[in-house]
Amino acid sequence: MSVIKSIELVGSSPEGFDAAVKDAVTEAKKTIRNIRGVRVQDMEVLIENDEIKEYQTRIKLFFTVERK
Amino acid sequence: MSVIKSIELVGSSPEGFDAAVKDAVTEAKKTIRNIRGVRVQDMEVLIENDEIKEYQTRIKLFFTVERK
Amino acid sequence: MSVIKSIELVGSSPEGFDAAVKDAVTEAKKTIRNIRGVRVQDMEVLIENDEIKEYQTRIKLFFTVERK
Amino acid sequence: MSVIKSIELVGSSPEGFDAAVKDAVTEAKKTIRNIRGVRVQDMEVLIENDEIKEYQTRIKLFFTVERK
Amino acid sequence: MSVIKSIELVGSSPEGFDAAVKDAVTEAKKTIRNIRGVRVQDMEVLIENDEIKEYQTRIKLFFTVERK
Amino acid sequence: MSVIKSIELVGSSPEGFDAAVKDAVTEAKKTIRNIRGVRVQDMEVLIENDEIKEYQTRIKLFFTVERK
Amino acid sequence: MSVIKSIELVGSSPEGFDAAVKDAVTEAKKTIRNIRGVRVQDMEVLIENDEIKEYQTRIKLFFTVERK
Amino acid sequence: MSVIKSIELVGSSPEGFDAAVKDAVTEAKKTIRNIRGVRVQDMEVLIENDEIKEYQTRIKLFFTVERK
Amino acid sequence: MSVIKSIELVGSSPEGFDAAVKDAVTEAKKTIRNIRGVRVQDMEVLIENDEIKEYQTRIKLFFTVERK
Amino acid sequence: MSVIKSIELVGSSPEGFDAAVKDAVTEAKKTIRNIRGVRVQDMEVLIENDEIKEYQTRIKLFFTVERK
Amino acid sequence: MSVIKSIELVGSSPEGFDAAVKDAVTEAKKTIRNIRGVRVQDMEVLIENDEIKEYQTRIKLFFTVERK
Amino acid sequence: MSVIKSIELVGSSPEGFDAAVKDAVTEAKKTIRNIRGVRVQDMEVLIENDEIKEYQTRIKLFFTVERK
Repeated sequence: MSVIKSIELVGSSPEGFDAAVKDAVTEAKKTIRNIRGVRVQDMEVLIENDEIKEYQTRIKLFFTVERK
Repeated sequence: MSVIKSIELVGSSPEGFDAAVKDAVTEAKKTIRNIRGVRVQDMEVLIENDEIKEYQTRIKLFFTVERK
Repeated sequence: MSVIKSIELVGSSPEGFDAAVKDAVTEAKKTIRNIRGVRVQDMEVLIENDEIKEYQTRIKLFFTVERK
Repeated sequence: MSVIKSIELVGSSPEGFDAAVKDAVTEAKKTIRNIRGVRVQDMEVLIENDEIKEYQTRIKLFFTVERK
Repeated sequence: MSVIKSIELVGSSPEGFDAAVKDAVTEAKKTIRNIRGVRVQDMEVLIENDEIKEYQTRIKLFFTVERK
Repeated sequence: MSVIKSIELVGSSPEGFDAAVKDAVTEAKKTIRNIRGVRVQDMEVLIENDEIKEYQTRIKLFFTVERK
Repeated sequence: MSVIKSIELVGSSPEGFDAAVKDAVTEAKKTIRNIRGVRVQDMEVLIENDEIKEYQTRIKLFFTVERK
Repeated sequence: MSVIKSIELVGSSPEGFDAAVKDAVTEAKKTIRNIRGVRVQDMEVLIENDEIKEYQTRIKLFFTVERK
Repeated sequence: MSVIKSIELVGSSPEGFDAAVKDAVTEAKKTIRNIRGVRVQDMEVLIENDEIKEYQTRIKLFFTVERK
Repeated sequence: MSVIKSIELVGSSPEGFDAAVKDAVTEAKKTIRNIRGVRVQDMEVLIENDEIKEYQTRIKLFFTVERK
Repeated sequence: MSVIKSIELVGSSPEGFDAAVKDAVTEAKKTIRNIRGVRVQDMEVLIENDEIKEYQTRIKLFFTVERK
Repeated sequence: MSVIKSIELVGSSPEGFDAAVKDAVTEAKKTIRNIRGVRVQDMEVLIENDEIKEYQTRIKLFFTVERK
């Protein structure tokens, strides 16, 4: 049996929003198992010296926790 | 004369959100004529075995219905 | 000293949502200095003759105004 | 016995928002029976050559479907 | 000195949304003094026998209460 | 080539919400060219001496800016 | 291959909100195949003669459409 | 002739959300006549000593006021 | 002295939404102490082979953390 | 036994938002007993002659009503 | 005659949210006349080296434009 | 390289909303490093014996996690 839990992360990438989501998932996989899905909450772009530096996506990440 | 109608679809693609929207439009074109535009409602990502399997976009699709 | 101001723009591109944001920033840079960031408000797709013609992103663009 | 269903339409009229709603209902009556009510979702105005061309209301239309 | 209070009402009229707001204000004036303003919350249309019977507006009505 | 920009205005009229939108557009036309459309954000009513004095609509007005 | 579509229904039951959802699903099954899930949008209660007559849930129902 | 008014209440019950709504309606009936319906706004659960003590529903209750 | 913290969980039950909330609280109690309350965020239903398989509630769970 | 009821008020103060909430509570205490809490809905500032005249907070005030 | 216009600003202050609003109004007064009011949209806090550096409020500022 | 994470806390203070945010940050600093900022989600006031006991702010706290 299992319960679903969610946390919130901000992924970022200089390439675009898809890559920013992938970045957050890649990072999350290092410490979280059984990731089920991701819901995009917000999309922002960071700009420095008049150039786009990073696409950022604030995501909600759902994962299954094994019950004891 | 004409009236605008809207339906809701979920498009999906392993490549990214742009492609997921394109997927839904491609599919809709088979049965719906005179599509005018699309509004993105929600973006989610499906994950299997710790890898992104599908980018999904829930869209609202607007099309013109000819009046008799 | 400085104050942050925001305006709203619609960027568009035939390639995708990332490019639509980039389009708006490129355009804004011609008249606005010290852009800090962008928040995506809405995403739409314009369709003509059953083909995606343009991806559009309505964005809020934040920039710093120098105080006298 | 019966179930309520809803669809989304955009009504439009050069006269105003009330007439735009009436337009959508008039159109819907041609194919839908037992309309119960309408909820206004969004109101927009289309402008051409600096003149208001059409008031538009995106509505949710509720109707009863007879159960077999 | 005075404090502002708000209540919620549903006004209705067979003529349109403006008249539905006016209806609610007319009714409120019978028991409430010092009405300051109205914010429209929701707009619905009641339909009977496939004809628009009533335009309805759910409003928030603000009024000043004299302090003792 | 062109970019779409949006600003926010409050139109007002003693006659009703349609007229309040028209008021804002009439005013905007004096300084803004190539208006494309209007999205209604909020509707309020100003009351003085227990009578409706003004219908007000807060609108978002979209217009095209020619690119150099 | 397949695409996900969604429609909106209002289920109702004298027993409670869970039963109202079940009612809508039971009804939808008669004409729709491959239902995947339901998202509750709104919950209301209908009252007659000062007694609760019906619990109502407005739901969004997602189902898979086989692609040709 | 009549006008619809709405108030907000929080119903509570140790049994569940349906019962919490019923609780609020039962209470409202003691002082309010001609209740028409209820819209659920929020659902919360109160917990004491690690056990669910009360299901709570914040509701908007609509009722008809007879016009003089 | 103490601070309140919140996490997000998805509870599920084949019986209904009340039981789905109870499921999440039961699970949370195994690792979290001093739970204060729960706010329901979203309600969904999972369907398999045209039958309701699980009622799911996404909840926000508040608990007190003892300060050192 | 008791039921919770809520009303909406606008508090105001020349000093700030905290004081504006306190103002509304002070005023409410004169006619309402057993106030439990307040939720801030909106914050506005009134300006006259280019100076801040009043901070205003629109609040929802919850109080317990004794059941007979 | 006059029309109301609104712009969006971010005010900031090391002292608190009230002061951050005042900061934005003070700044706006240098270039804008006939400010009528301010609506708070968002409140954030900037932190550097584990200390609160600035309270920030994103505001919508309404002002009257004289009509020619 | 680093990823941004967010958690939700409720800060409280008898003095006001600014202090309630400060309270949550002070508490968070004991266990979390590299806090970047805070977004205010909700503001409530707790009342006991007809006096304001505590101002509460539910906040979202963003912090950087070092990547290995």
